[in-house]
Amino acid sequence: MTELALMDNLWVMICAVLVLFMQGGFILLEAGSTRMKNAGHIAGKTIFTVGIASLVYWAVGWGFAYGEGNAFIGMSDFFFGDFSTADEGLVGSVDFFFQVMFAAIALTIAFGGFAERAKLSAYIVFAVLFSAFVYPIVAHWIWGDGWLADLGKQDFAGSTVVHLTGAMAALAATILLKPRLGKYNKDGSANDLAGHNQVYTALGVLILWVGWFGFNAGSTLEVADAFFGYVALNTQLAASAGAVAALFIAWAMTGKSDVPTMLNGALAGLVAITASCAFVAPWAAVVIGIVGGLIVFFSMKFFDKARIDDPIFALSVHGVAGVWGTVSTGFFATPELAAMNGGTAGLFYGGGLSQLGVQVLSVVACGAFAFIASYILLLVTKAVCGGLRVSEEEEIVGLDLSEHGSYGYPESMPGNEKTGA
Amino acid sequence: MTELALMDNLWVMICAVLVLFMQGGFILLEAGSTRMKNAGHIAGKTIFTVGIASLVYWAVGWGFAYGEGNAFIGMSDFFFGDFSTADEGLVGSVDFFFQVMFAAIALTIAFGGFAERAKLSAYIVFAVLFSAFVYPIVAHWIWGDGWLADLGKQDFAGSTVVHLTGAMAALAATILLKPRLGKYNKDGSANDLAGHNQVYTALGVLILWVGWFGFNAGSTLEVADAFFGYVALNTQLAASAGAVAALFIAWAMTGKSDVPTMLNGALAGLVAITASCAFVAPWAAVVIGIVGGLIVFFSMKFFDKARIDDPIFALSVHGVAGVWGTVSTGFFATPELAAMNGGTAGLFYGGGLSQLGVQVLSVVACGAFAFIASYILLLVTKAVCGGLRVSEEEEIVGLDLSEHGSYGYPESMPGNEKTGA
Amino acid sequence: MTELALMDNLWVMICAVLVLFMQGGFILLEAGSTRMKNAGHIAGKTIFTVGIASLVYWAVGWGFAYGEGNAFIGMSDFFFGDFSTADEGLVGSVDFFFQVMFAAIALTIAFGGFAERAKLSAYIVFAVLFSAFVYPIVAHWIWGDGWLADLGKQDFAGSTVVHLTGAMAALAATILLKPRLGKYNKDGSANDLAGHNQVYTALGVLILWVGWFGFNAGSTLEVADAFFGYVALNTQLAASAGAVAALFIAWAMTGKSDVPTMLNGALAGLVAITASCAFVAPWAAVVIGIVGGLIVFFSMKFFDKARIDDPIFALSVHGVAGVWGTVSTGFFATPELAAMNGGTAGLFYGGGLSQLGVQVLSVVACGAFAFIASYILLLVTKAVCGGLRVSEEEEIVGLDLSEHGSYGYPESMPGNEKTGA
Repeated sequence: MTELALMDNLWVMICAVLVLFMQGGFILLEAGSTRMKNAGHIAGKTIFTVGIASLVYWAVGWGFAYGEGNAFIGMSDFFFGDFSTADEGLVGSVDFFFQVMFAAIALTIAFGGFAERAKLSAYIVFAVLFSAFVYPIVAHWIWGDGWLADLGKQDFAGSTVVHLTGAMAALAATILLKPRLGKYNKDGSANDLAGHNQVYTALGVLILWVGWFGFNAGSTLEVADAFFGYVALNTQLAASAGAVAALFIAWAMTGKSDVPTMLNGALAGLVAITASCAFVAPWAAVVIGIVGGLIVFFSMKFFDKARIDDPIFALSVHGVAGVWGTVSTGFFATPELAAMNGGTAGLFYGGGLSQLGVQVLSVVACGAFAFIASYILLLVTKAVCGGLRVSEEEEIVGLDLSEHGSYGYPESMPGNEKTGA
Repeated sequence: MTELALMDNLWVMICAVLVLFMQGGFILLEAGSTRMKNAGHIAGKTIFTVGIASLVYWAVGWGFAYGEGNAFIGMSDFFFGDFSTADEGLVGSVDFFFQVMFAAIALTIAFGGFAERAKLSAYIVFAVLFSAFVYPIVAHWIWGDGWLADLGKQDFAGSTVVHLTGAMAALAATILLKPRLGKYNKDGSANDLAGHNQVYTALGVLILWVGWFGFNAGSTLEVADAFFGYVALNTQLAASAGAVAALFIAWAMTGKSDVPTMLNGALAGLVAITASCAFVAPWAAVVIGIVGGLIVFFSMKFFDKARIDDPIFALSVHGVAGVWGTVSTGFFATPELAAMNGGTAGLFYGGGLSQLGVQVLSVVACGAFAFIASYILLLVTKAVCGGLRVSEEEEIVGLDLSEHGSYGYPESMPGNEKTGA
Repeated sequence: MTELALMDNLWVMICAVLVLFMQGGFILLEAGSTRMKNAGHIAGKTIFTVGIASLVYWAVGWGFAYGEGNAFIGMSDFFFGDFSTADEGLVGSVDFFFQVMFAAIALTIAFGGFAERAKLSAYIVFAVLFSAFVYPIVAHWIWGDGWLADLGKQDFAGSTVVHLTGAMAALAATILLKPRLGKYNKDGSANDLAGHNQVYTALGVLILWVGWFGFNAGSTLEVADAFFGYVALNTQLAASAGAVAALFIAWAMTGKSDVPTMLNGALAGLVAITASCAFVAPWAAVVIGIVGGLIVFFSMKFFDKARIDDPIFALSVHGVAGVWGTVSTGFFATPELAAMNGGTAGLFYGGGLSQLGVQVLSVVACGAFAFIASYILLLVTKAVCGGLRVSEEEEIVGLDLSEHGSYGYPESMPGNEKTGA
């Protein structure tokens, strides 16, 4: 192998580890955004669902996504084992290792819609189905040899493939599971079932921010021209702009900047720039981030009013901001950068509506597919598991006890303080 | 230096930082697996014990491990200062920096056996002795120019050198220290002294998983052929398989999947594949991980029944899974991969019993040495410190107060809530 | 670009991500060192202040620091957008990305002086002013084309530029804000307003330690000779020595090793070696670390007695140890290493007082500038925000409620346990 190819592999290898680290961010974000009685469960399930995603993606997911097939699905390379090497490009193992981490992230996003009420068995069954049939097919359409790739769809690091797909599964789940007990009053107004630990959520967002440089800058898949630096710069600016915009909009609209909104602003900026980080100018990254930070605030309010219970804000952060990010490329892609990646310039650079049209089409098509497929597979899951949701009693006592047999915080639960003595 | 050599150094440097980060995983795993009254102590001691391990390994440990000497111990290069450079390979500083991180991990594993009852002074004295005399000698035997290296022992990243050595020291410690107060009833049955925070333990396991790519893939010590990707893939599959296997066996045997078992399954998969990650096929990595996840469950039960108190599960995770991992190489090593690293194929590939025999011999020899040496040095520690264990009163009040003078969670301890007002 | 240049960029890119990760360490260190009622606030503010620092540094900070100008300030390259590439060296985006992370760290250190009593609006305004006018000017003096660079000032990774500058801003803030309610008694004696979570602080220190390898070893800005390994080795030895020295001095002086002192010892070793990591021999790194660990203990006592309330120990860790680190180069720099970086040998190597004089001058000049400029800008902030400090009532109830409208730990606050049921 050439030294250049070795460097490409080295870079992508490290970025894959950073993407795995994002799971640590999700552990904290999910645990911190939910209540103490579910904390051990929601943190612990992340570990085995990463395991399931990895095994399933190895067995069949990669084959459906990147195997040879047709415009809709790949059909070869199951039980991934391509260890041939070439002088140039990524070796099979590194390529797989990077991709499997993305599959696991999409699943973790999807599980945002399960929080605080789904059965443990439902997690297991849906993890298998989603990792086999939902994520790989969208990945094939856009990043494999699929029909959206043929149309010139631009999704540099996965605003659509990872974030929107995960969020649509979360939406299907939260609709089927129905809101958590106590979330809505009889008059339709929503209660704030506040998460129990904002230090966790803040640290979780910082870890996600850190890992996102593997996610976005690693999606260069090579070190040529040190272009990863450009991608990283745009990512940093968008995340920053999202955080600041959310801080101010929450303050302006509610009189206080609540911590969850501030944090979700940074995430929304990160999700939004994920599609476009390689295609736009730094000033546009700032604009994309600002818009991301603003819409996540209104989106959170919207879902709350629409009686769609979104405990981890997956729909707003990964869904709505993911859509905005994908579409924004159609506005802001510069001619030079778009050309480097085989696309066309955005609307604001005289590229007309063609790229914008492809972007919108891809959002609609992938969003619809991910939602419908997840909905159907959740019905399958429901049948297999005898229901998706724990009983009312179990939900009240918490999933730590009901699903795992012990509290995650045995010394901190009311009436239980003596345990540690 | 050649560009290839610079890349080797760059890779190993980054991996060393990942291995250091594993200490953060241990901080969370140990603190989360123990009780609130000991949390500040057990987290805080990790910082200075990493410090002691680094200084002692720099002063004498590296010299005993890698200095020129005989088949049993090295005897040169004390106060490490080899900063000569060559065109090829690792420079001295990078080589040392990577190795010192392994020495510190072995020590942290050993301290799993000290949890919730050892004196602070015992930590200090044993840290010096273990880092000087136990870990370096095993490292010399297998990775230095020692007698097991001569026999063709395969331990790619340290299932034996790091994990088994650390676990044997933990075993010696837990035997000498005796079980924690309240762990066993008069009839010999065990109580569950549940750890106080499963979010910590889950995040700790995720951080260990992340850092393990530095541990295993970094043990290539070079970037040639991007072989680190193959090692990483096997590592990911084994960790995943261990997590899933433990999830199911706990469910099947006890009716619930408890969170600690699920998490220990992932760790057991990681420990087990550590010896063999560079020698086996991906399907074998899955098998090795599954077996790791299964045996860790039964091992945890075994030690509980045997009245050996293992608060952080160091004996099961690092000991039993470490043995399994080391031996598994003797079954599953493929001829091609084993040859690349100067070993022979495993039993299942027609290699006969020779490699298996070396592996078993090494486990017995290193395990016995690490146990006996640690036992003796703990007796030395006991003499120096006037006992290894805090008094009953101190244990009841907790080591945060007894050893450090203040609670780790001053606002959360029963009867102490007013402190924060 | 040459392969060597690509490797330089790859290295610095990864190190920049490590420096960003240090913010996670600060989140934990700051939250853990303060009380529960302020935890969500202090963790959450880190996210948007990183955002503000990044945007402001992009808009004007980089231009003031590295633009063309005079000996005191740069005056070009605002709204950073230099994406030209050359065969050699760092591309603009990577160079910027690394530097912006340092600017954000300096700001986070400065906010140590704000803890538990400053208004949210004061954070926002001062973040803008500090990132625009304080940090960049010191950076210009030493790392840009400024007057201290011309004099041969040695500050490899920023003991002065980052740590002392941040600490001086923290000092100005803590003087203007005055001590927290309850910190001092009428007789002038100090109370210990103990931080609420030592697991956070220990993990925070470990994360900072990990990230510091990006900070120090990344400041090579290149991979030539794998010299980053040498820098890393010195960094590891100094951090280790600082931790161990603080452990023993606290024990000797107070009868117990308190956890905060143990942890601050490691940080003091890291801060101290930051200036000199590329210039000194390993034994000198150990000495520098030991002295760092000792002085941080006495410094903490000193500020407590001097009625200067320093909740996160920013003045002792980043200020006093930063000064020691900067000055130590003047004693310990070896002729060979100093020459490699264009400096002269330290006093102990026959370099006379010239380098020591420059080092002392730079501490005085930069310390005075950072303090005075921060003091003035804090008065501006006070005028803009109608005061720097929240009301007594707000401080008593905590900043989570007063500034953000909800507790960071809603289920764990006294009288609030029912929330999670």
